[in-house]
Amino acid sequence: MRKGLRMNNFDFYAPTYFAFGKDQENRAGELVKRFGGTKVLIHYGGGSVVRSGLLDRVKASLEKEGIAYAELGGVKPNPRSGLVYEGIDLCRKEGVDFLLAVGGGSTIDSSKAIAAGVLYDGDFWDFYCGKAFVKQALPVGTVLTIAAAGSEGSGDSVITKEEGMFKRGTGSNALRPKFSILNPALTQTLPPHQTAAGITDIMAHLYERYITRTTEVEVTDRMIEALMMTLIHEGPRVIENPNNYEARANIMWAGMMAHNNSCGVGRSQDWISHMMEHELSALYDCAHGAGLAVAMPAVFSYELPHAMMRFAQVANRVWGCPMDFANPESTAKAGIEALRNFLTSLGMPRTIGELGGSEADIAKLTEVLCYGDGGNGTINGFLKLDAVQCAEIYRAML
Amino acid sequence: MRKGLRMNNFDFYAPTYFAFGKDQENRAGELVKRFGGTKVLIHYGGGSVVRSGLLDRVKASLEKEGIAYAELGGVKPNPRSGLVYEGIDLCRKEGVDFLLAVGGGSTIDSSKAIAAGVLYDGDFWDFYCGKAFVKQALPVGTVLTIAAAGSEGSGDSVITKEEGMFKRGTGSNALRPKFSILNPALTQTLPPHQTAAGITDIMAHLYERYITRTTEVEVTDRMIEALMMTLIHEGPRVIENPNNYEARANIMWAGMMAHNNSCGVGRSQDWISHMMEHELSALYDCAHGAGLAVAMPAVFSYELPHAMMRFAQVANRVWGCPMDFANPESTAKAGIEALRNFLTSLGMPRTIGELGGSEADIAKLTEVLCYGDGGNGTINGFLKLDAVQCAEIYRAML
Repeated sequence: MRKGLRMNNFDFYAPTYFAFGKDQENRAGELVKRFGGTKVLIHYGGGSVVRSGLLDRVKASLEKEGIAYAELGGVKPNPRSGLVYEGIDLCRKEGVDFLLAVGGGSTIDSSKAIAAGVLYDGDFWDFYCGKAFVKQALPVGTVLTIAAAGSEGSGDSVITKEEGMFKRGTGSNALRPKFSILNPALTQTLPPHQTAAGITDIMAHLYERYITRTTEVEVTDRMIEALMMTLIHEGPRVIENPNNYEARANIMWAGMMAHNNSCGVGRSQDWISHMMEHELSALYDCAHGAGLAVAMPAVFSYELPHAMMRFAQVANRVWGCPMDFANPESTAKAGIEALRNFLTSLGMPRTIGELGGSEADIAKLTEVLCYGDGGNGTINGFLKLDAVQCAEIYRAML
Repeated sequence: MRKGLRMNNFDFYAPTYFAFGKDQENRAGELVKRFGGTKVLIHYGGGSVVRSGLLDRVKASLEKEGIAYAELGGVKPNPRSGLVYEGIDLCRKEGVDFLLAVGGGSTIDSSKAIAAGVLYDGDFWDFYCGKAFVKQALPVGTVLTIAAAGSEGSGDSVITKEEGMFKRGTGSNALRPKFSILNPALTQTLPPHQTAAGITDIMAHLYERYITRTTEVEVTDRMIEALMMTLIHEGPRVIENPNNYEARANIMWAGMMAHNNSCGVGRSQDWISHMMEHELSALYDCAHGAGLAVAMPAVFSYELPHAMMRFAQVANRVWGCPMDFANPESTAKAGIEALRNFLTSLGMPRTIGELGGSEADIAKLTEVLCYGDGGNGTINGFLKLDAVQCAEIYRAML
């Protein structure tokens, strides 16, 4: 176990302009103009954005401001490198100077990859496999349609390379959106499974920051706990009534705050659950949140002996588990069980089997996680884990 | 009682770059350069910034980057209009294009006023008495020396007009600092009274946002509560040991988060305590925080019948008062008493008498508050209050 560190020095810069609330998508043109865009690529996924009329409203808003645009649909969950290459070519051909993502985290992440790739001479994948750092990118704006990834307020992007199905992320302040439009009403039409997967993703972003070796970080601990309690309050309300605007609104702001890193500053973070999940969604093509629901309890149970009082703290403060002073481990474990039960109550899966996998996949999952795409046999987060340990954790998800 | 409103539409834009931690003041030159400054006015208060060597370190950092500077010291607590006019003249004469505030909220607020005034043809006071809105200002950077006002991350500024001693505020995104350097170690040499007054100011910024007519705002409620609990945990630790870096660091980040408005978005706010306090510090020239310690319990006790369950909620969730389900009022009152006792334990005053005033001042305080500088006889916050009501609240502070 590595030594604990006290609150670290940090830089924090989150200059995204947020327009939050009903009908705000009609301001897309105004905001693109404010941030200097003259030729836009509208990037989106598939049917729902088109069917709901959202895409038309965004186009009308651009047209009203006299802003020209090209468009590129077809983003899939766990967005693929192939479409990124296509987007880069299209932007160069059309002289695009602004990316407008209309969709969820996948669409935003794909837009960020395109934005960085357009201004880069090499292969954009260099940013994702760690060969290069994103120093500049075309400006990106977003019209968010699901509360989940937090990509609307972060500098992060995750892309899956089709050759080998490696899912990898990059991060840079250059990738923070110039503006993000957050209209909670746009999320009211989401299927329950996607809503629940989004809530799970937000919860994971909070746990990944909570599990730390840095001591005496009360302010960020408390902020993380605040956002967790918001999800616990609002999650069941929105599953019960998908049209609950207020619950959607609270979750949407929580999703942004959970990942713009204002509650993760100055402390070491974990991200083991995300690393392990990336292989689940790459292999099973499940929703990222569904994979996280399976991964988190297994990862946290493995980490528990190394962070007993921290898991007891979240159990007591957030989940309301009574503190067992004679046996803190029981409190810590009760908190992980409460998390699992909460996610199940939202409709999330508990096992790899529910994702469509089986024990036969463990070796492959572990192999790609630890050795894929230049891996050195270990992964690094709150713990440093080798392939044997990773396989053990994957087996606990069966 | 006006009708409750649900989570409102809002815009949020907080593009300040934060450099947080030990020795970060040595990056002042680098950061001024990054944000385009070529000729700086260093604005500061008095002795401590000079005696501690901080001013010299900041100057050395500017010189290292080849950035020219003028300087203007002499900012007092409750900063005055006279020095603002002087600063505006100096900036114009010297061709200054960047304001660098080295100090606390007063110095930062004075810098913002100068920054706005330099680019304005009329009297800068127009922005503070409501005759004009700040559309543009010179860029401002800060090196913060006390956790209190939150001006390092906000677009707000409060200035006292010497003629009449009117204390008034303005706000605009154009006044948000380009960067702020937050080194908790710089706050370790503060006298206990100033430290305590700073914590009180932060607590007030949280209560002013908490007291709202907007319903179903769980996410911002929880975030505010998180920051309150941070102060309750760290406040006594830093009073006990002024050199506790970690406690200082947690309070410093909480102070910024409390006032950059990420936890106040989409909800009506109060600010009655601040309005009433402004007349206290204008008349008695006390620390803003000391005045707030006197004002808050009286204001909240007056508001309590109109927001019973809200005051019960903060009492229970933040102060740990058991919820009295048969008599929520007793819980709500216990929370206000817990706040008062917390502030007293830090060394803050409880009464106008302790500020050096007496009953004879009530009429004057009320007169200036309600009718001074163009006032119409009422003040507007969570409640709309007339002079009779304001006088009653002031009397409760005796």
